[in-house]
Amino acid sequence: MTPIKVTVWNEFLHEKENPAVARIYPDGIHAAIAEHLEKHEDFSVATATLEEPEHGLTEERLNQTDVLIWWGHRAHDRVDDAVVSRVRKRVLDGMGLIVLHSGHFSKIFKALMGTTCDLKWREAGEKERIWVVEPSHPIAAGLPEYFEIEQTEMYGERFDIPTPDELVFISWFAGGEVFRSGCCFYRGKGRIFYFRPGHETYPIYHHPLVMQVIANAVRWAAPVAGPTPVFGNTKPIEPLG
Amino acid sequence: MTPIKVTVWNEFLHEKENPAVARIYPDGIHAAIAEHLEKHEDFSVATATLEEPEHGLTEERLNQTDVLIWWGHRAHDRVDDAVVSRVRKRVLDGMGLIVLHSGHFSKIFKALMGTTCDLKWREAGEKERIWVVEPSHPIAAGLPEYFEIEQTEMYGERFDIPTPDELVFISWFAGGEVFRSGCCFYRGKGRIFYFRPGHETYPIYHHPLVMQVIANAVRWAAPVAGPTPVFGNTKPIEPLG
Amino acid sequence: MTPIKVTVWNEFLHEKENPAVARIYPDGIHAAIAEHLEKHEDFSVATATLEEPEHGLTEERLNQTDVLIWWGHRAHDRVDDAVVSRVRKRVLDGMGLIVLHSGHFSKIFKALMGTTCDLKWREAGEKERIWVVEPSHPIAAGLPEYFEIEQTEMYGERFDIPTPDELVFISWFAGGEVFRSGCCFYRGKGRIFYFRPGHETYPIYHHPLVMQVIANAVRWAAPVAGPTPVFGNTKPIEPLG
Amino acid sequence: MTPIKVTVWNEFLHEKENPAVARIYPDGIHAAIAEHLEKHEDFSVATATLEEPEHGLTEERLNQTDVLIWWGHRAHDRVDDAVVSRVRKRVLDGMGLIVLHSGHFSKIFKALMGTTCDLKWREAGEKERIWVVEPSHPIAAGLPEYFEIEQTEMYGERFDIPTPDELVFISWFAGGEVFRSGCCFYRGKGRIFYFRPGHETYPIYHHPLVMQVIANAVRWAAPVAGPTPVFGNTKPIEPLG
Repeated sequence: MTPIKVTVWNEFLHEKENPAVARIYPDGIHAAIAEHLEKHEDFSVATATLEEPEHGLTEERLNQTDVLIWWGHRAHDRVDDAVVSRVRKRVLDGMGLIVLHSGHFSKIFKALMGTTCDLKWREAGEKERIWVVEPSHPIAAGLPEYFEIEQTEMYGERFDIPTPDELVFISWFAGGEVFRSGCCFYRGKGRIFYFRPGHETYPIYHHPLVMQVIANAVRWAAPVAGPTPVFGNTKPIEPLG
Repeated sequence: MTPIKVTVWNEFLHEKENPAVARIYPDGIHAAIAEHLEKHEDFSVATATLEEPEHGLTEERLNQTDVLIWWGHRAHDRVDDAVVSRVRKRVLDGMGLIVLHSGHFSKIFKALMGTTCDLKWREAGEKERIWVVEPSHPIAAGLPEYFEIEQTEMYGERFDIPTPDELVFISWFAGGEVFRSGCCFYRGKGRIFYFRPGHETYPIYHHPLVMQVIANAVRWAAPVAGPTPVFGNTKPIEPLG
Repeated sequence: MTPIKVTVWNEFLHEKENPAVARIYPDGIHAAIAEHLEKHEDFSVATATLEEPEHGLTEERLNQTDVLIWWGHRAHDRVDDAVVSRVRKRVLDGMGLIVLHSGHFSKIFKALMGTTCDLKWREAGEKERIWVVEPSHPIAAGLPEYFEIEQTEMYGERFDIPTPDELVFISWFAGGEVFRSGCCFYRGKGRIFYFRPGHETYPIYHHPLVMQVIANAVRWAAPVAGPTPVFGNTKPIEPLG
Repeated sequence: MTPIKVTVWNEFLHEKENPAVARIYPDGIHAAIAEHLEKHEDFSVATATLEEPEHGLTEERLNQTDVLIWWGHRAHDRVDDAVVSRVRKRVLDGMGLIVLHSGHFSKIFKALMGTTCDLKWREAGEKERIWVVEPSHPIAAGLPEYFEIEQTEMYGERFDIPTPDELVFISWFAGGEVFRSGCCFYRGKGRIFYFRPGHETYPIYHHPLVMQVIANAVRWAAPVAGPTPVFGNTKPIEPLG
């Protein structure tokens, strides 16, 4: 079996500047996620970060990527438009994309959604309870009916996205909000999963069920060998009058 | 890897009575489909037919089935309601279901859809062209942009089903109709795929791309180990006032 | 302008037997809902109840109904199957249907959904907060971002329904659950709205925003003069070979 | 009743340069569409064109627009990005948008969809048959099961758009293609309808059923008074531990 080639992208700024974040993710969020994913035999994992040349997302790297995982927060506007275009083209050509947490405001996610992707938020270390609303979905494999994150940043509705093609999770927050926190989208030949949990100051990417969801999503978003559409001027297949 | 356990169900009447059908499917449509599927290493295939005791769909058989394929035409009303209930319960509990062609009018499909499942039809041996409209879908794996069935019965819109959760194929017919011919549904913990092609008087289940679609659909519909929801009276998780 | 003809159906048992319910709804839940709806000039409102002949849902009554509102709880199994079939046929022929609260377990809703329609519940008088997740939807007209019901029965996910064609509301409950509480479905030529709030022991159908939602839903579900599909054997429109 | 304020936008170039187009639309496609819509008492119609200052789409004009109709073909890239941003913002704030035919490649449609919006096409004057696949939809009001355009440019799948939130029409073409030709999208607080028919060299916007669809779509896309979401940092509604 050919492994699924995963690239974990992280802006990798908080971890260098904030000791509290560095304690949780000493080598960066990307390294933590990569380490967890590497335990799966069917994955082959690489990483890339903002301050590498071309943000580590060269043509070559993207061509070697089946599923790209995206974490960004403070520096969305430092991501070069040319790289965003390149990633978007690859997604529409079939590469899977998993957008985590504050990545909702990344250029790449907004470009693919077409909406503002805005939401409500609050940093109060409150409890999140993530409910599975589509238990038949592959991304729900191996999960209980709900799981909890004891302390997290809240994201609340209205989440300004297109209606997800498949809605897998809805979150409950102690402070009174709800959120569509696991959202699947088909775009071009690619598939996109937005997953809400994750914040730089909480050890969320060490939570086994969070990592289970991400691994499930990698398998779900991996490219399938569907047809490559031909666009433009075309001859009739049937004889015309 | 544990193989996916497939059971192919066929009412198996035409083949016994109509020599033209018997020439195409000497051992029945179920045997032809099973034989094609058995070439896939990841499938383990059994069959069941109407005139077996309990239509071959005993509790034990269904418990040994990951994905059930259904072909029926003339004798939908001879399928026992108790067996329909049993199959429906298994689908809602996670078994995949693939409904072929005239199975649109089977008791099991109508019960799971809630609508009449009616459509237009015509037996004129005309050409069908099946277009992939969702190339990112796993059921489109290995297909070209479209493929053709040279001679087939026509099915035309309006097809009275709920909006499919995912629409993979749309058919074009020489006589002037269109049809949503590859439709995915999530129901309970189970997944259902309706696939239009197939008629007892044409060798459609020997068409390699038709069989590719059915194999893809088996993989797509195979159960995932999602949570089993608990229903009914429940205690609060959070303390109430 | 021709008014929309609304029929409010209620099983009308709790109100006759439980003084606490009778205090809130002295003439029945149906009468309370009807009285609120009659304030809208564009509605013409009638009622029907379980213990009337044919449950008040004669052919004539249904033919005079554009939108049927359904409230039942204890006596779903006392609703005659022939009446359920008649209502179902009318919905598929274009009549709107609004199913309230415990109506999720009515025969008519289950028949139209095809799933168990089961859910979690708890009677603890806790707070519900109903969030609008689709602010562009006509059923959200005139609402704030969220509104609250101070004391209510809880309904929690997993709600075993097909994915709604449009999801308008998600509820937050104090005890820790979430629920898809405003769900739109297209079925046949009819449109169906399931709305969660409402319980016989709370004055929920006197809540102005709950009644605003129901009025919005009546307008959304009212029949449109779409084509009546013709089913069955049909001649080719285009010349065949 | 307050009328729905419609603005019909047209790039208005073909009509000035091509006598064949000018014969069909002597005052421009926008004027023809506007004239047809003005027959409806509930509409108040204005027009705007590319070569007016700010393409006729000033802040003031957009603030006076409930539903914007968009026709463009040759000069998509001459539409100023600032105007596109302004229109997009208004759509996400609630203005309806109806995109016609070659408008599939307009900047505004592509920005709101996030995909390439590419398709197959052919100018061979062939027949299109437009089938209603969702007869319960308001945009299907007053239509027969299908209607025909005798001579038209063909558009064929794959149409590279997100899955429509509601799919109303599927087209059949004589040359062998199918197309999802009536597609509804919810985006932000706005609603978008893409409608395929229409080409500058055919009198398609004089076809009564085409104009019926456009009028239906105007009513469907008109803003509803849903809540205006508040985004950003927010206080807890419930007391936190």
